[in-house]
This record gives sequence, structure tokens and C-alpha cells, in this order.
Amino acid sequence: MLYFDHNSTAPLHPAARAAWLDMQERFPANPASAHRLGQRAEVALETAREHLASLLACPPASLVWTSGATEAANTALAHLAAVSSASAPVWVSAIEHPCVLEAASRWFPGRVRLLPVTSGGVLDLAVFQAALGNTSPAAGDLAAAVPAAVVLMAANNETGVLQPWRAVRELCRERAVPFVCDATQWLGRLPADGLGECDFVFGSGHKCGAPVGIGFLKAPDACRPLLAGGPQEGGRRAGTQNLAGAAALVAALRACAESLAGVPDRVALRSAHEAALLSTLPGAEILGAGTERLWNTIALLAPPLSDCRQRWVVRLDAAGVAASSGSACASGKEAPSHVLAAMGVPPGSSDRVLRLSGGWETGADDWRAVVEMLRGIFERWR
Amino acid sequence: MLYFDHNSTAPLHPAARAAWLDMQERFPANPASAHRLGQRAEVALETAREHLASLLACPPASLVWTSGATEAANTALAHLAAVSSASAPVWVSAIEHPCVLEAASRWFPGRVRLLPVTSGGVLDLAVFQAALGNTSPAAGDLAAAVPAAVVLMAANNETGVLQPWRAVRELCRERAVPFVCDATQWLGRLPADGLGECDFVFGSGHKCGAPVGIGFLKAPDACRPLLAGGPQEGGRRAGTQNLAGAAALVAALRACAESLAGVPDRVALRSAHEAALLSTLPGAEILGAGTERLWNTIALLAPPLSDCRQRWVVRLDAAGVAASSGSACASGKEAPSHVLAAMGVPPGSSDRVLRLSGGWETGADDWRAVVEMLRGIFERWR
Repeated sequence: MLYFDHNSTAPLHPAARAAWLDMQERFPANPASAHRLGQRAEVALETAREHLASLLACPPASLVWTSGATEAANTALAHLAAVSSASAPVWVSAIEHPCVLEAASRWFPGRVRLLPVTSGGVLDLAVFQAALGNTSPAAGDLAAAVPAAVVLMAANNETGVLQPWRAVRELCRERAVPFVCDATQWLGRLPADGLGECDFVFGSGHKCGAPVGIGFLKAPDACRPLLAGGPQEGGRRAGTQNLAGAAALVAALRACAESLAGVPDRVALRSAHEAALLSTLPGAEILGAGTERLWNTIALLAPPLSDCRQRWVVRLDAAGVAASSGSACASGKEAPSHVLAAMGVPPGSSDRVLRLSGGWETGADDWRAVVEMLRGIFERWR
Repeated sequence: MLYFDHNSTAPLHPAARAAWLDMQERFPANPASAHRLGQRAEVALETAREHLASLLACPPASLVWTSGATEAANTALAHLAAVSSASAPVWVSAIEHPCVLEAASRWFPGRVRLLPVTSGGVLDLAVFQAALGNTSPAAGDLAAAVPAAVVLMAANNETGVLQPWRAVRELCRERAVPFVCDATQWLGRLPADGLGECDFVFGSGHKCGAPVGIGFLKAPDACRPLLAGGPQEGGRRAGTQNLAGAAALVAALRACAESLAGVPDRVALRSAHEAALLSTLPGAEILGAGTERLWNTIALLAPPLSDCRQRWVVRLDAAGVAASSGSACASGKEAPSHVLAAMGVPPGSSDRVLRLSGGWETGADDWRAVVEMLRGIFERWR
């Protein structure tokens, strides 16, 4: 099968696999143990932390290893709720991943304000700036209260649309509002410059070639642990530290970093595949067309099929391509995607949505093969 | 170096390593993805869940994969706090692991009641039973209020002392009080019979040969997620499911299960090593002597060394043995162990504490070698 679902999870990168096995072999002890074997494991863990800090350009001590992005999002939001007034809202873009939207509702119950996006799927910066300008520390009204935090992803998981996180980070800084950035889909695909300057930023290993079960959160020293139980990670995350996972995450990100010079070519290729798709499938639309987007992701609104029981993603699966109609985390649900709804895509069109997300190892031939398969499906079912 | 710190973390078992690599190879997709590759990964994940359920004798659907024991403890306690009255206390044995003690304080602030242990390090069942009998649903007083839950570990991590968790489980059942069991040190070393009957039970992969970063929690269907963000795990734990970790945990536990027939021999060997230690080190004491204990753990109160700056565990490290003076999670602290304090061990004796914890692969020769090294240290520094 052709694998076009990297935004759900990427296959284990050989460099990550090698790093993981190497750590298991050479550093079998618990990094928290006081003996020499433990100390060696701790040095290896701190070396991995320094490498990640170097990629993000932030102090190593600001980084907390977590089990993934979901834990990181919950840790950041639980902390921010605990240190804010009990009435402060959290502002979250309407197209965040479910782990941010549900964590926001969990830790700020009834106090989540969704920030709108344009029809292209980009945070509406003018609306955001005006809203932030209208807040006042003295406001009793929820709508006018200064937010406890603003959360914006760097790149959207369903459409690949890049978000104006640098601008939002600076606007938040001017108002001393903590800014949280979900860099899960950005890392490993675009340069990380500037991400380390966010107050909170997090990512997940398995979206870029590391195993499932490792992620990180950049957080202040005072960040309250969501998982209580030990002094690890500067008191910000208890539990035995996942050295092998951390080293694998760093190895995967470093391997990706070597490919980053190829981003312009990849963007050009994506545009070529999109043009081929649009000419192959009359009436198709690219979601987020005209915006800056990840080179690996094409979110397509395909033309309707003659048999309304047929869904594009299912036909493609039968043809041998693993693609998605949205976030894997929401794939159990039949409801239309909240991302597409926020972009104004009509609810009835969810059967026509196809997300194709490749990786660095996905070749132009693979993309061309998918276009041909879609052509075949269209010709059979139109 | 000789590794005698299995209670901190165990080396990766070859069967767990093979299972982990096999899952990465054969099931690279996200178990939540709807396409065939995702469905295959989901089947593999559910197969792992069924195997674990079979080992624990509980329904597969009652099991939630977590990142480890710390997350499991926090999830259980956060849920129990959320569904109990805001004044209900939680009862926790005084010798629980820090992940339970700190999670209890985190989620039941100011409402943690510590249950005493005997000088042998066993929960004082008479005190517990009397206390539970004196509670009343109508009591306004914290001391007499029915607890929101009772938490007791199956086996202590510092001393190896087995706890009367079956009796406590039954007493709790009679009073309809939820019972939470931390089986982290028990699993893989003793038969799991009856653990699956606890309302909540949890364990961690890396104590029995699986990688760090995977654990489980048996919890009711209604258990509230600590990590919000997606429908995975029956809505009880969001985040991409760690299939490779889950399969590795099952492989490690199954490998251990094949060795369980050897438990009586191992207990006999432990007693022989203890006798050798006591005759080698005049004045030494075995902590928890006379109680039922794990076959793999000897907690020793060694005689004082002539130079008070010398600690036994450091001398042993220099001699080539990785041992511990207590929990790795607390090893950053110089304070005496709360476990030994609860057993009445004087605070000044913490420099003399040695925890030796082996694994199935630790041979009688390894234990004899440690006894000889301790003899050498004693002869040099007495």
C-alpha cells in the first residue's frame, strides 16, 4: 500500500530506530538512579535535551520530555488554568487539534473562546488583534477579560495551512499574555527558527519518524506538573524518563533537518500535483488554496461520486492508498471536521474530503500514482 | 558492572525488544486511522489488550494503555477526586511510591490520610479495618468520612514487602469503597491472580523488561481522562496509542510468566543470600525480615562504616555493583526514605541502607559476588 497518512503518524525513521536501540543497549539504567549506570543514562538524556534545545533555539532546561503532544497540551493548559484567575478565559484557534480543544475545555471549563479563521483556513489576524486590543485587565466581562493564554498551532494537521504564529507570539508578548504553540505538524518539515521563543511550545515524536510515546513541552521553570510523583524534569513531569524515546526523537528531527534545504522543491512539487489533481477531477478544490501550506499535505475537496454511499477515502483505501479524511484522532466520529466547518466548508461535503499527507521519503512517483488512482475512481464512479 | 537495581528499571527483555521491532515493522500506522493499515494496527493493539486482560483476569475493555505507572496513578486519583464529594479524603498507605503519594496530594489536597505500617513494613490491617469500620457516610469529620478511595501497593519498591492487598480489596468491597492497587513491582515477579478484581490496578512496562513509556490502568468505563483530547481508549486516555510499547509490555510479562514456577526456589535463594549477608556483616539487619517479600529484593540495613562520609551504596558502586538506597524517583533527595521512616527505622541510618534488586536473569553467582564485595567493603572500612 502507498502510505499517505503521515499527519496521523509517520513510519519509524531508520535513524530513530538506530538511536532507540543504541540507547537500550548502552544505557539500560534509570536516569534518576544515583549509581554510575544511572548517571551515564542521565548524561545521555541531557545530551538529547541539548540537541533538541539547539534545534529549537531555547535553553535546554526549558524543555520537558512528555509522552507526546496530548500530554504536553494538557500539562500547559492545566498549569495556565492553575496560575490564572478562576474567571480568566483561554483563547484557542477554532482549528486546533482535538488535544488542544478538549484540553482547553477540560482545564478552562466554560471559558474557551474560539478564534475564527478565514475561508483559507488561516487564523484571522485582524480579528485576533482587535479582540486582544479590546481586552482590559479590569474587565469583569468574559469577552473583554485578558486571556490566561492564547493557543495557536504552527501548521494545521488537516489542511497543512501555516498559521501566523510568529505574529501572534509578538502580539501576545506586547500584552504579557502567555503564548502556546502546537508545533506538532511543523517540526521536521520546516525550519524550527523562532519556535523556541514561544512561552510554551510542544511537539510529538511520531509525526516525524520517532516512535509513539515521546514528545516534549517547552515550559517555564514554574510549570506545575500534571503528572505528580517525582522530581524528574525539574519537577514539571514525574515518571521515569524515556531516554530511548528522547534520543529517537532527536535523531528523527536531525535526519529531517538535513532535508530542509529541499523545502522549496517540495512545495513546487506539491503545486504540480495539485494542478494535476484539479485537471484530473473537474470540480475539485484544494482546501486552503492560495495560502502558505506544508509541502507534504494536500487537503482536497473532491467532486461528488454518483453513488452517495461511496466515500473517496474508502475507494482510495480499496485501491491501495492509505489516506485520511481528517484527523485520525477524530476518525471515529462521523461528524464533519471542525477545521473545515471553521473554514466555511458545507457540512454535507465531508464524504468528499481527502487528506493526502506524505513524508520526506514519499517520491514524486508515489504522488503521481495517487493522482492516477483518483482518476480511475472518478471515471468509474462519476 | 553487576546490575542490582531492577526495582528502578529492568533491562529490555529480548522478547520485548523483538515484539517492539516487529510492531514497528508490520503495523506502522496509527490504530485510530480508518484505512486498512490503521485497522490492522488497531487489531494488533486490541490483541495486546486481550493478552494483558488474560494475564490479569479482567475484561479487555477495562484496560487503558498509559505512558506508565505515574500517569496511571494520576489518572485514577484525578478521576476519583472528580467523582467524589469535595470533602472526601483518600486513604493511602504510608509506604506508597511517590507517584501515588504526590498524586494523592495533588488531586486530594489536604485530604490525604496515611495508613500506618508495622515495623516489618506491612500495612497494619487491624488499624485499617478498625478505621474503615469507624467511618460513616453521614460523618462531617474528615477522620470519620468514608474515603473516596483506598490505595495500596501490591509489593513495596524499597523493601519488597508484600502487602495484604487482597484483604484490603475485600474490605473495601464490603463498604463499596473503590480500591486502587499499584501492582508495578508485583507484575512479572509473582502470579497476577486476583489483581484484575481490583477496581483500579496499574503497572509499568519498564519494571519487567518492556521499554520505558508504556503502562496500563484497569479502570471503570466512566473513568474521566486526565489527558483530554480524543476518543482513544474508550475516552479514558487521549493521545496516539503506543502499539509497539503495548505489545512489548505483553511480551515481557508473558516471558516472565514462564518463569513464575521458579518463585519458591528464588525465595529460598534470597533467604540463603540474606543469611550469608548477615553472617558476613555483623550487626546488619534485613528490612522487613520475617514478612513475605519479593524474591528479587533485599533491603539491607548495613553496619556503620568507620568513615561517616562513606555510604554503602557509593562504595558498592565503586566496586562495580549498581544498587540503590531507595526509590530512584526519590534518589535526588538526601532526606531519609518515607518507607523506612514509616517502619520506624531511625532517620540517621539512611547512609547504611542498601537495596539490592535483581531480575530473573540475575544468577546465584551474581548474588554471591555482591556478598563478597560487601564483605570486602566492610573489612576495609569497618
